Amino acid sequence: MSAKVPEKFRPILESKALAHLATLMKDGTPQVSPVWFDTVGDRIRINSARGRTKDLNMKARPQVALSIVDPENDYRHIALRGRVVEITEQGADDVIDGLARKYLGADKYPFRQPGEVRVTYLIEIDNVVTMG
Amino acid sequence: MSAKVPEKFRPILESKALAHLATLMKDGTPQVSPVWFDTVGDRIRINSARGRTKDLNMKARPQVALSIVDPENDYRHIALRGRVVEITEQGADDVIDGLARKYLGADKYPFRQPGEVRVTYLIEIDNVVTMG
Repeated sequence: MSAKVPEKFRPILESKALAHLATLMKDGTPQVSPVWFDTVGDRIRINSARGRTKDLNMKARPQVALSIVDPENDYRHIALRGRVVEITEQGADDVIDGLARKYLGADKYPFRQPGEVRVTYLIEIDNVVTMG
Repeated sequence: MSAKVPEKFRPILESKALAHLATLMKDGTPQVSPVWFDTVGDRIRINSARGRTKDLNMKARPQVALSIVDPENDYRHIALRGRVVEITEQGADDVIDGLARKYLGADKYPFRQPGEVRVTYLIEIDNVVTMG
């Protein structure tokens, strides 16, 4: 059932491209917003904060989709569909710091809000569509 | 019920930013992919081709979402939720040519496939979230 991003498109996953993450609202309608991401094996890892729309959505409805465009070529992209298979607050501060390193070259995530509890989500990919 | 993109964020709609469009698959799971877009009044206009996944999805399930990042600032973006309120093949070839003009500076859409039937969708915005 699970699927992999083809080797040829893996560099997009290593790039600083944002992923546009679609989740499902309570009424079943879609919501989409840009997120930082990295990978753990064949899974996509993202990080958010407790209580945000995407956090509430993914906790209640694990079905998600991601769209990632090559930062060097708008006409080369990856569209993924999958499920959140793990949600944890453990180590989530380290994960967001790691993402700040990837995207900003910073040692620590600079946008932390007082009282914010970070959460990590692992997404198993079920379907991959590539273009370009 | 309908909502507007705040004036301050309208320049993102005029820019060459892609929109990441989320639609719903038959089983209710989300799908998301990058699209060209422009606006007609307060509505978002996109164009696809008959039989594509997003075409089939929007014809059966009008609920969509869009995520648009400022091409000059990754941390400034618009997230929209709404409904497809009009679908037409009439004039759809002119619409895709207009989008090719906006995005490529081309007079005609250069990627047309033999037998392809273009379709235009107008999206009414119900909810706007801005960041940055």
